[in-house]
Amino acid sequence: MAPGVNLAEALFSPRTVALVGASGDAAKTTARPQRYLKKHGYAGKVFPVNPTRNEVLGERAYRRVCDVPEPVDHAYILIENVEEALEDCGRHGVAVASIFSGGFADAGEAGMQRQARLLARARALGVRLLGPNSMGVINVPGRIALSVNAVLEMDTLPAGTTSIVSQSGTMLGTLLSRGAARGLGFATLASVGNEADIGVGELVELLAGDPGTRVIALFLETVRDAERLAAAARKAHAGGKAIVAYKLGRSALGEAAARSHTGALAGTDAALDAYFRDCGIVRVDMLETLLEIAPLLTGRRPSGLQKAGRVMVVTTTGGGAASVVDRLGLRGVELAAPIMDLTMAASGQDYGSALAKAAQSDCDALVACVGSSAQFHPELAVKPIVQFAGPKPLVACFMPQADRSLALAAAAGIAAFRTPEACADALAAFLSWRSPRTSPALPVPTSTHSNPLELVAGLGSQVAQWAITEAPEFRHAIPYPVAIKRLEAHKTEKGGVILGIGERAEFVKKAESLAAERLLVQKMESGLAEAIVGYRDDPVVGPLILVGVGGVMTEIYRDYVLRLAPVSEEEAGDMVEQVKGFAAIRGYRNLPRGDVRALARAVSALSRLALVKGRPVREAEVNPLLVKADGVVALDALVVQRDAA
Amino acid sequence: MAPGVNLAEALFSPRTVALVGASGDAAKTTARPQRYLKKHGYAGKVFPVNPTRNEVLGERAYRRVCDVPEPVDHAYILIENVEEALEDCGRHGVAVASIFSGGFADAGEAGMQRQARLLARARALGVRLLGPNSMGVINVPGRIALSVNAVLEMDTLPAGTTSIVSQSGTMLGTLLSRGAARGLGFATLASVGNEADIGVGELVELLAGDPGTRVIALFLETVRDAERLAAAARKAHAGGKAIVAYKLGRSALGEAAARSHTGALAGTDAALDAYFRDCGIVRVDMLETLLEIAPLLTGRRPSGLQKAGRVMVVTTTGGGAASVVDRLGLRGVELAAPIMDLTMAASGQDYGSALAKAAQSDCDALVACVGSSAQFHPELAVKPIVQFAGPKPLVACFMPQADRSLALAAAAGIAAFRTPEACADALAAFLSWRSPRTSPALPVPTSTHSNPLELVAGLGSQVAQWAITEAPEFRHAIPYPVAIKRLEAHKTEKGGVILGIGERAEFVKKAESLAAERLLVQKMESGLAEAIVGYRDDPVVGPLILVGVGGVMTEIYRDYVLRLAPVSEEEAGDMVEQVKGFAAIRGYRNLPRGDVRALARAVSALSRLALVKGRPVREAEVNPLLVKADGVVALDALVVQRDAA
Repeated sequence: MAPGVNLAEALFSPRTVALVGASGDAAKTTARPQRYLKKHGYAGKVFPVNPTRNEVLGERAYRRVCDVPEPVDHAYILIENVEEALEDCGRHGVAVASIFSGGFADAGEAGMQRQARLLARARALGVRLLGPNSMGVINVPGRIALSVNAVLEMDTLPAGTTSIVSQSGTMLGTLLSRGAARGLGFATLASVGNEADIGVGELVELLAGDPGTRVIALFLETVRDAERLAAAARKAHAGGKAIVAYKLGRSALGEAAARSHTGALAGTDAALDAYFRDCGIVRVDMLETLLEIAPLLTGRRPSGLQKAGRVMVVTTTGGGAASVVDRLGLRGVELAAPIMDLTMAASGQDYGSALAKAAQSDCDALVACVGSSAQFHPELAVKPIVQFAGPKPLVACFMPQADRSLALAAAAGIAAFRTPEACADALAAFLSWRSPRTSPALPVPTSTHSNPLELVAGLGSQVAQWAITEAPEFRHAIPYPVAIKRLEAHKTEKGGVILGIGERAEFVKKAESLAAERLLVQKMESGLAEAIVGYRDDPVVGPLILVGVGGVMTEIYRDYVLRLAPVSEEEAGDMVEQVKGFAAIRGYRNLPRGDVRALARAVSALSRLALVKGRPVREAEVNPLLVKADGVVALDALVVQRDAA
Repeated sequence: MAPGVNLAEALFSPRTVALVGASGDAAKTTARPQRYLKKHGYAGKVFPVNPTRNEVLGERAYRRVCDVPEPVDHAYILIENVEEALEDCGRHGVAVASIFSGGFADAGEAGMQRQARLLARARALGVRLLGPNSMGVINVPGRIALSVNAVLEMDTLPAGTTSIVSQSGTMLGTLLSRGAARGLGFATLASVGNEADIGVGELVELLAGDPGTRVIALFLETVRDAERLAAAARKAHAGGKAIVAYKLGRSALGEAAARSHTGALAGTDAALDAYFRDCGIVRVDMLETLLEIAPLLTGRRPSGLQKAGRVMVVTTTGGGAASVVDRLGLRGVELAAPIMDLTMAASGQDYGSALAKAAQSDCDALVACVGSSAQFHPELAVKPIVQFAGPKPLVACFMPQADRSLALAAAAGIAAFRTPEACADALAAFLSWRSPRTSPALPVPTSTHSNPLELVAGLGSQVAQWAITEAPEFRHAIPYPVAIKRLEAHKTEKGGVILGIGERAEFVKKAESLAAERLLVQKMESGLAEAIVGYRDDPVVGPLILVGVGGVMTEIYRDYVLRLAPVSEEEAGDMVEQVKGFAAIRGYRNLPRGDVRALARAVSALSRLALVKGRPVREAEVNPLLVKADGVVALDALVVQRDAA
């Protein structure tokens, strides 16, 4: 890296920029960065690089990067021959090269190999890469518009303290454009492209250290560097900065190719949801919320609420408030008291008094809805909202088209929403925001048996008494009644299970009927409910632990809770509490109660596989785990070792 | 009613208007209708009525309505003494009185009685009422702004062919204001208030006959006149007009106070959902969709698809298209082929060709997404969208702030959306739109036993063999094994059930242990799954039929499907198909298949209770109904007769 410049400076605040492949035709995409840098007042030096011209759009041009007569902090590569440009960057000591060009990991297997070679060269040359396939970087307060994104055709960009990192380059423009129309400002925006080198995690780390950034918004399609992002999230949290994510792929849940039940259930989206939660990253459901939530998060800390939260609502439109509350109800948020409907006749003073009164009540946040006065008379209800200074978090929802009021709220740092849905989404997400979780200190398992039931027993869970029995005698010492199973069978698939065998003669007959050399004999057990407990070392987010209702219903209802492993018994208890189907053993009507604490212990025990050095177990599943009135007992288990792939 | 004027004319196009309580202080709410009528170019005559002034805002005023020297089509009552004004209206032959004043059904029990008295007088006087608590009526093309809604401060109102009926007066303003900002126009807008007389159903009926209306949008909090609205929906459908509803109260599901399981499950929102579906009313989930969907429905008929539908997507922004598709996936809509991502480099010609190609593929609708060019260069991707004339329905989603493009689309009659969520909501709602259902012709049940199991048997369903047995001998002729139940017990509540009794001696011992004089003895049956089948004569929408997975899981997972009763066996089969938990008996993995056709027959049979004259049964529930490999058998049932309340 060039002397005197660190990565953050070179990326976000370069003193000098080379545009490799800058076009002299102002209409071309490759001419845009030069136009945009100038248009938005870049104070540093721009060096167009173009092998066929001495001048580009009025600036002296150079044949190659290494011909530039000064050190270059940041090169933006816009040409197809990225490799040659990179060599020149290396030779010239360029700190960072952002690459707009595609044809790498975005273009199949051959492209992936090309990207790997490019990265290896960049490492050798000491050049850091953003991209390939990156739309570049925009630093609004710094007046650096180093991007091809057409959003920069806007005459002025709104400066603020929200930074964005996006895996979609075009969406950066979408967010900036919508924010600008609302008076919501931005600090730094970066398009990560293929993340060959600098990824989302590293960018968040850099932004966590950026004094101009207070909220970091992520537009994600996946997570490629979960550990680094998790560490960056902790750093941001420690620095009082919030991170909020909108992630695609929610409906792909269950489509992930996976071999075992746990694999299928711990589909990437559910796993990422658990991951975001543990990282203290707020996840929003709607695209516009990603923008609109920023003032609500700015300078605030996670609520730390145990439940979904209770709110007070003040409104001049009953219908409007009801549309927000209806949506909040779908997310489990409750009303602390009935909606305070001041009707359209409310004066500014009425509204202000109502807000003050609501703020003094026992609630976790305030919702302020405004009807037509938000459009025509902001001096009425909008003014007291904008001036609200109580300690309680407040969100505003303006029902009519109310651009001026939205801008007033933005200028005052008040979170204001265009739609009841985004308002409810933001508030519910805010109320469920938690600090990054500290992984619990738990004993490391001492042995990892390859036999599934032995593994489970070794972790301290009770296992139904079992033995292996062999033809032709099928001897065993398990007390009757027993069940027999083919050793390799997955029971609902193959039918290789016979239950409730009462005595020896029947046992021998049934054992012979299975036509197998070796069988598993197990003492029959009965319980109040069946659970599934699953562990999985997810390739994206690492070790996960799952608990759900056992049997076919797990898959049909997707009624399970997933967390990053390991979990303490207390955390496991919270997980069990959230599985809907266990309502039946939590004291539902007069049904007998199951030992949910023992279930939680079993969940915590299995999750400790995450602590074994080298994490040899890739997947483990106890299914069914019988929950009894007193204790739990594992009937079957499945383990996939890492080297078994 | 005054001669020469019908209700629709008096309501929506009055030639003369009296404003009862019109204020001379232009700043007051009660001065607004006069100001607004003038501002928006009302061509008829306005008569302010004010007992203390001879002139109001420059117009000759009258002490009472009956002093007005001409016939009055429509009076708008803005004063507290509504009763006196109504008498005057009656005396003067006023056709319709809209009442802004509250203090009626909106104000507790006393208010409800006041409203009933008012209605009785109105009927006696021959005056039709809109309200009380109504914000009035706006007829945009007719230039009639007879409302207190402050949205009328707008200088011009956008005319169009979408009419709105709203149970929230303020929301009329919200919708009109937002539509205006987008170039979405309106025909007639009516605020129904308390619906003392003219309700949503009658208004829809009138609008169905209005040549200026092509889409009728409803903002609903409840439905007060389900039969009339259903008939109006049929009339609208026959006239080629679509109805779309946004209804509050989704999260109140399950809160309805109800006595039996079925009652609890058939909570009002789920019942209304079934009702809308049967009426051919499109239901949208998000407020903004109610506006934005109008061009998609205008002139179109229900899709009649059996499934959720398949779409083709053309885009210049991969991230934007993915955000729409992700949301569509949550609603079950599928992609007919991968997203056609033309990237931001696409020309207008590229985009047009891609659209044409997509339109020729085997899909049900097209989604066109546009990135930054929607903001800065509508001549690129937006132009071919606006000019699209294929037979396939098309929706557009513009990712950046793109007001001009939204207006271009609106002017061209293309449904264009601001957010990916509203776009997906509209498209999913459109694809699931069905024509109003014709109630099937089914045999009327001939007898309605009061004994629940006899009632079920009488409808043609199989019932487990049973008998009543009495202390001290407890004689019976049911073959063993049997179950015994306390007659009055709801089994999970009281535990008064003993299962699997194998022979006489055990039977007597167990029967005595229950300490009851009379017991029900029932032959033990076993099946592959338990179902619940419920019938309920809902006070809002009328007879409903429900099928779900039986046992405690029904309530925990709310896994049931609800329809208006009666249903044919084929319709019942569709219902069974949609219950998730029945996947376990539909051929899941290698599990045995249950007789879902017999289950459908039982559902249809119970639904025929809706055909019994006078509908004496208010609720009936078969739970559990065992589904066997061959047939179904009812084990328990519950019936509530109408007079039992």
